[in-house]
Amino acid sequence: MDLLSLLKWRYAAKKMNPAQPVPADKVERIVEAVRLSASSSGLQPYHLLVVTNPELRARIQAVAWNQAQITEGSHLLVFAAWDNYTAERINDAFDLVNDERGFRNEGWEAYRQKVLAGYVPRDPEVNYAHAARQAYIGLGTALIAAAAEGVDATPMEGFEPEKVDEILGLKAKGLRSVILLPLGHRAAEGDWLVNLKKVRRARKDFVTEVA
Amino acid sequence: MDLLSLLKWRYAAKKMNPAQPVPADKVERIVEAVRLSASSSGLQPYHLLVVTNPELRARIQAVAWNQAQITEGSHLLVFAAWDNYTAERINDAFDLVNDERGFRNEGWEAYRQKVLAGYVPRDPEVNYAHAARQAYIGLGTALIAAAAEGVDATPMEGFEPEKVDEILGLKAKGLRSVILLPLGHRAAEGDWLVNLKKVRRARKDFVTEVA
Repeated sequence: MDLLSLLKWRYAAKKMNPAQPVPADKVERIVEAVRLSASSSGLQPYHLLVVTNPELRARIQAVAWNQAQITEGSHLLVFAAWDNYTAERINDAFDLVNDERGFRNEGWEAYRQKVLAGYVPRDPEVNYAHAARQAYIGLGTALIAAAAEGVDATPMEGFEPEKVDEILGLKAKGLRSVILLPLGHRAAEGDWLVNLKKVRRARKDFVTEVA
Repeated sequence: MDLLSLLKWRYAAKKMNPAQPVPADKVERIVEAVRLSASSSGLQPYHLLVVTNPELRARIQAVAWNQAQITEGSHLLVFAAWDNYTAERINDAFDLVNDERGFRNEGWEAYRQKVLAGYVPRDPEVNYAHAARQAYIGLGTALIAAAAEGVDATPMEGFEPEKVDEILGLKAKGLRSVILLPLGHRAAEGDWLVNLKKVRRARKDFVTEVA
């Protein structure tokens, strides 16, 4: 796999082919890649929903500018960030590290206290915003993982988050939907974007070397 | 290249080896992967700085909890988000698409107006927050791109952004530093983390299937 070729191959498919669902093993590897993604302090402050239920996806489409890929694709990934950092969530993450590694470590425990002291008293909106950013690392991973599987994935910010939260019962779980990512296969014949050139700013307008 | 293996190989190196700089061609492919990353409406609302200057990196380290990888590594990537969405920035991005594709399109022009109407009047802090999220997609890409090159990369949010902005003259360019990402090679003998198990929440605690 050549990463640059994958990044050039992928695009935000505007039409997906409902007759070509994504095989379960491919979805599983995409999900696993997201799970393995980096996050700040390793907290993984979001949850990944894999929605296949057609009725729920139709309801989500209705509150997402009617973007058809949500139901044309076979799987809808929903990245849902923690609505806040709580002591319980932070402690669970630090405890898991201790459990998995089989020991406690002074430096790690000091770092736990630092994170607790910094995050727990903070405005929940600031905490949510920080958690949501981490979900975007996962999104960056998911886009590459999908391309590596030859799967199309169309990231969507255009939806009413409170309504998606309601449809999926996220509020009760302390989660807020951040990104929708339908997975499927491009329906090239009906997609206005498929044959258009991928456009990015020139290197000189995007990168600055400070030597 | 197997993506899951790369994600397992990488970690946030705590000590880098100054005697092993990253070759320029590897840095170039990492930078190019970021440039090709997806972003909302294709705006690419951030800039990537590649800082090699030792004196500047030492000054940045001093306002970043003294994290030594900033100077032990050979290259410091700085993701700097647009401080606001302006009509000029949005129009430049839409114009570039027209120039590169060689035509204007009614749907695309209507979408331009929608983005202009939605973003330009919005609170600059909201716009900055949205731009910063897009930089995290680039970060997710950069971490994979580095791993694909056998290069270590340690994402850092722990720094004083206003001071980094000042050191790099970002404010005058309408940019705000969001993430630091030193590139280098792990100095395994001095890194407390290198041999510890990578810990992630179990799939059942991270993923929910809604069938």
